[in-house]
Amino acid sequence: MPQAPFSIGVDLGGTNLRIAAYTREDGLLETILLPTRLAAGRDAVAADMCKAIETLQVRFSVSHPLAGIGIGTPGPLELPAGVLHNPPNLTGWDGFNLREAVESRLGEPVELESDANAAALAEWALGRGRSMKLDSLCMLTLGTGVGNGIILNGKVWDGAAGMAGEAGHATIYPDGPACPCGSHGCLEMYASATAIVRAAAQRAASGAAPALAGESWTAHSLAQAADQGNSDAKAIFTDAGRALGIGLSALVNTLNLPLYVIGGGLAQAWHLLEGPVFEELRHRSYVYRLTAPESPLAARNSAAATHVLPAELGPDAGLLGACLLPFATH
Amino acid sequence: MPQAPFSIGVDLGGTNLRIAAYTREDGLLETILLPTRLAAGRDAVAADMCKAIETLQVRFSVSHPLAGIGIGTPGPLELPAGVLHNPPNLTGWDGFNLREAVESRLGEPVELESDANAAALAEWALGRGRSMKLDSLCMLTLGTGVGNGIILNGKVWDGAAGMAGEAGHATIYPDGPACPCGSHGCLEMYASATAIVRAAAQRAASGAAPALAGESWTAHSLAQAADQGNSDAKAIFTDAGRALGIGLSALVNTLNLPLYVIGGGLAQAWHLLEGPVFEELRHRSYVYRLTAPESPLAARNSAAATHVLPAELGPDAGLLGACLLPFATH
Repeated sequence: MPQAPFSIGVDLGGTNLRIAAYTREDGLLETILLPTRLAAGRDAVAADMCKAIETLQVRFSVSHPLAGIGIGTPGPLELPAGVLHNPPNLTGWDGFNLREAVESRLGEPVELESDANAAALAEWALGRGRSMKLDSLCMLTLGTGVGNGIILNGKVWDGAAGMAGEAGHATIYPDGPACPCGSHGCLEMYASATAIVRAAAQRAASGAAPALAGESWTAHSLAQAADQGNSDAKAIFTDAGRALGIGLSALVNTLNLPLYVIGGGLAQAWHLLEGPVFEELRHRSYVYRLTAPESPLAARNSAAATHVLPAELGPDAGLLGACLLPFATH
Repeated sequence: MPQAPFSIGVDLGGTNLRIAAYTREDGLLETILLPTRLAAGRDAVAADMCKAIETLQVRFSVSHPLAGIGIGTPGPLELPAGVLHNPPNLTGWDGFNLREAVESRLGEPVELESDANAAALAEWALGRGRSMKLDSLCMLTLGTGVGNGIILNGKVWDGAAGMAGEAGHATIYPDGPACPCGSHGCLEMYASATAIVRAAAQRAASGAAPALAGESWTAHSLAQAADQGNSDAKAIFTDAGRALGIGLSALVNTLNLPLYVIGGGLAQAWHLLEGPVFEELRHRSYVYRLTAPESPLAARNSAAATHVLPAELGPDAGLLGACLLPFATH
């Protein structure tokens, strides 16, 4: 009996580089974890990546046909060219043609997507999208920044230049703090893990939150403090949830998708965010009010309901999405 | 030689009801204009609509085959059901099944869309979308409110419940004035004709804009005053353009479409809006900065450019879009 086809997926991050072999039947067969050697330069990183791809290719080609190679990369990524444009997490990579660098080394074509789009694809094919049997979703990944990927009718929505899915840089408060993207008051400035930690430091420094003073907080330790009743920590998650709810309201009103998925490390604190998220959604989106899961409309037509839920897949979403790219229809 | 198929389109408004016969070769063949008899009730309006449809059907069926009937209606419209949900411009129509009311009278199926989606379809097929040969666009219609329609790959994006395209109710300033939709600080509260007139009245009443005092302004007369150098009138359009630019920035970052079209009556004042619109786009959307028509990326790949332009079609856009619905692939 011929073996199922396998793919090779790459999750390129600012710190780690993960390369995996994958089949739809058995999932991840083997994962290679490497440091992203940014100091050695982009060509060295591309070479590391290709060497690991070739290792897996040799190992699994014996028993399986190769379906293709997929790469998820920090954006902004220009498609179909495969050029990176000043990616904040890959300093010095501005103008780098990642597609060319990899394809010329490997001698074969690769599928490219931004890491947030890859994660959304995985959440659609293997996570919430699969368990809820839905064709379309919008994913927000709350991590160092706020990533975003949109799946419409089972396909990644790349947009005209490959740069769709940057709702993390939608303005929430026009006069808010400066964002590294050049704008002010972006969703990412309120609803990322980075923003949570910054808010704690600012509140502590202002003297307004003595219960936060004198500690070096992480998003995780702040969530624990909130769970233990620290009201200053709770207030930080409330603010983040409020910003997330304002951003989600615009996405619900604009796209009316059946599913919005919240992923990333900060989604572990979903229980602290969801109250203000749904409060803002009910306030700011009449589309949400009309189509919420408990609405009469949703009771009559469950396919028309709007669901907002934490992601099912964990930190492997981006890697799994890269592995899925060769199997996805574009 | 058999004649080209004709469609019948209906543009249902809160004041006027327009019913037209249309062919793709000759455009609008005949238009019937009726008042929308809201006081007589929704069934009377549906009956008026159907009588006019039948008149055109009898007249043109002699020479042409009927391709179908399309209706554009104020939303929120639930699709595929065809139920209106508390439409602000059709008081007393909450829960009205417009599809059922029309199809039972006519004895045949009709295609339904929100008026803003119909206008976007027309602008795509017959306006900017056609002249620029682009597959996808997002249209904002600046009128009494701010309508929105999204065309992706040549099809109206309806969303799961038919309610996509409500970016007019994206939040711009979270603590802004109350919107009739139930939210606060919606785009519609700043960038509609209604908002422009309200801003003039407020500035005049506050005493801060003596050049606006003692007059009963319309959006049109305010634009004329601005053109004649009235700096208070100009400032009102600057504020509206700024809000529009903030809203557009989120749409560009999220969807990365090749074309954003600004229609509706207020688009006649585009020359007063475009300065602040592009200022905000450059500030708030790195996707726009990377893909603006004059960017190196757009020079290399013109299909990846982001265009923001006034609509080509005028007040007939909604009616034309309704006529196009039977020809559109869904």
